[in-house]
Amino acid sequence: MTEMFKIQFTIYSDMVEKFLEELPWGEDVLSQSMRYSLVGGGKRIRPVLALACCEVVGGNSGEIVRFASALELIHTYSLIHDDLPAMDNDDYRRGKLSNHKVFGEGKAILAGDALLTYAFELLAGESKLPPELRLRVIREVALAAGPTGMVGGQVLDLEGEGKKLDLSEIEQIHQAKTGAMLIVSARMGAILGKGTEQEIEQLTRYAKAIGLAFQIKDDILDIEGDSATLGKPAQSDLRQEKSTYPSLLGLEGAKTHLNRQIAEAKEAVKIFGMRAEFLSCLADYIALRQH
Amino acid sequence: MTEMFKIQFTIYSDMVEKFLEELPWGEDVLSQSMRYSLVGGGKRIRPVLALACCEVVGGNSGEIVRFASALELIHTYSLIHDDLPAMDNDDYRRGKLSNHKVFGEGKAILAGDALLTYAFELLAGESKLPPELRLRVIREVALAAGPTGMVGGQVLDLEGEGKKLDLSEIEQIHQAKTGAMLIVSARMGAILGKGTEQEIEQLTRYAKAIGLAFQIKDDILDIEGDSATLGKPAQSDLRQEKSTYPSLLGLEGAKTHLNRQIAEAKEAVKIFGMRAEFLSCLADYIALRQH
Repeated sequence: MTEMFKIQFTIYSDMVEKFLEELPWGEDVLSQSMRYSLVGGGKRIRPVLALACCEVVGGNSGEIVRFASALELIHTYSLIHDDLPAMDNDDYRRGKLSNHKVFGEGKAILAGDALLTYAFELLAGESKLPPELRLRVIREVALAAGPTGMVGGQVLDLEGEGKKLDLSEIEQIHQAKTGAMLIVSARMGAILGKGTEQEIEQLTRYAKAIGLAFQIKDDILDIEGDSATLGKPAQSDLRQEKSTYPSLLGLEGAKTHLNRQIAEAKEAVKIFGMRAEFLSCLADYIALRQH
Repeated sequence: MTEMFKIQFTIYSDMVEKFLEELPWGEDVLSQSMRYSLVGGGKRIRPVLALACCEVVGGNSGEIVRFASALELIHTYSLIHDDLPAMDNDDYRRGKLSNHKVFGEGKAILAGDALLTYAFELLAGESKLPPELRLRVIREVALAAGPTGMVGGQVLDLEGEGKKLDLSEIEQIHQAKTGAMLIVSARMGAILGKGTEQEIEQLTRYAKAIGLAFQIKDDILDIEGDSATLGKPAQSDLRQEKSTYPSLLGLEGAKTHLNRQIAEAKEAVKIFGMRAEFLSCLADYIALRQH
C-alpha cells in the first residue's frame, strides 16, 4: 500500500517534472533564473494534488498536466519573492542558494513576476477541455493566489512579525498564505476532471485539512528536524520568536491537532471509496514527512 | 475635432476610473497600497486604447470595461516593481512618492504581485462574452506581460544599463517592455469587440506604431520637458547615460522618427474610415503630449 502510494506519487510528480523541463526555455538570464528555482526541486505537492483529485472524480490526469504545473510556477514565484531581503530574507531554499543570492534582487523579483504571469499563460493555453471550466479554474486560481488569498497572507505574515498572535490569527494567516493554494489545487483537479459540485466540496474539505496539517507539521519539523534534512536552518521560528502551533499548543498539543486534521482529511474523501486510497496516503505522507 | 477627442478620451478614462474606484477595496494595508498606486493617477492609455479599438470594430465598449481595466492593474504593478531600489530606484512616480517610499519595499513587492494576480481574476470574471474569446485574450495578455514580453523587456533593460546600445537593441527592449502591452490592449478591444482577423491585424500595426511613438516622445520629453510637468526629474536619462532615441538619432532625427510612426499609425486605421477619427487623434495626442 505505502509502496503503491510512493510509485503513484512518483508517476504524478514525474509528469509535472517532465512538463516543466520541456517548457521552451531560452538561454537568456531570465530563463536561467526561472529554471533555477523551478526545475528539479520541491515536492510538487500542489500539482500532484490536482492530478490525484482529477483522477479521483474520474478525470484523465494526463489532460491537465499543463494546468497542474501552472500551480508549481505560482508556488515557486511566491517562494522567490518570500525569500527576498525585504521579506523573509532567506539565503537558502530547497537546500540551495535562494534566487536573489544567485541572480541578484532585481532579477529575482522579475523571475517571480515572470513565473506568475507565465502560469496564467499556461492556464489559458490550448486545450480540448471546455472553455467555461477553464475560465472557472483561472478565476479560482487568481482568487487563491491574489490579495484575498496567498498575497494577502504574505502581507498578514509581514505585519504579524514580532507580534504575539493567537491561534485564530495564526490559522487565518496560514489559511490565506498556504491553505488557499492547496485548496484550489484540489478544486482545479476536481473541476477539470468534471467532478460533481458535491465531489468538489468534499475535496475542498480534504484540502483544507491537509493544508492545516502541512503547516502544523512544518512548525513541528522546525523544532524536531535537523538543518541538513530540512534544507534550511532548523529552529528558525524559535529564534525569530514566531508564534507557531507548538508555541501556542505545546509540542504534544500540536501533534494532537495534526492528527485531528489527518482524520478529518480521510473522512472527507470517504465518498470515493477505494479510489480515495492515494489521497488518504497523501494525508499520512504529510503527517509523517521529515522535511 | 480635437475638442471631440478630448471629450471622448475623458468618457473612456472615466469609465475605467469609476470601475477601479468601485472595486471592493478593503481597509487593510494591502488594499491601501494597491489603491495608492492604481487609483487617481496615470493617463489610462492602455484601457482607453482597448475601449476605442472595441468600438472601432463595432463592439460595445461598456461590455469590456472590466477587461480593459485589468490592463491598468498590470501596468501599475510593473511601475511599482520598476521603481524598487533593486530596479530603477525611483522615489517619485506620477508626481507623488513611489509605492515603496510610502509602504516599504516588502509591501510594495506584494502590492505589485497582488495587482498582477487580481488582473487575471478580472480577466476571468463573470461576463456574457464568449468564453473562447476571453481565453484568447487571457493568453495574449499573459504573453504580452510575461517573460517574452514586458518582464523580458525589464530584464533586457536592467542588463543594458551602462552599456552602449544601438537602435535595434533599443527598439527590441521597448518592443518587449512597453510595446507588447500596448499591442495587446488594442488586440483585446478588437477581439472582444468581435473584429475580423484583418481588423485585429490592422489595429496591431497601429498599436505597434503608437507604442514606438510613445517611447520616442518619452525620450524627447526627458530632454525638453521640465520636472514639474513630467512629475519626475527631467534629463534623468542623460544623467544615467542611457541610450535613447535622441542620443542615437539626434533630437531632430528623433522627431522625424516620431512623425514617421504617427503617419504609419494613421495609415493602419484608414480601413475604418470616419470611425478611425478617435484613433488618429490618439496618435497625435501621443506625439504632442507634454508629460
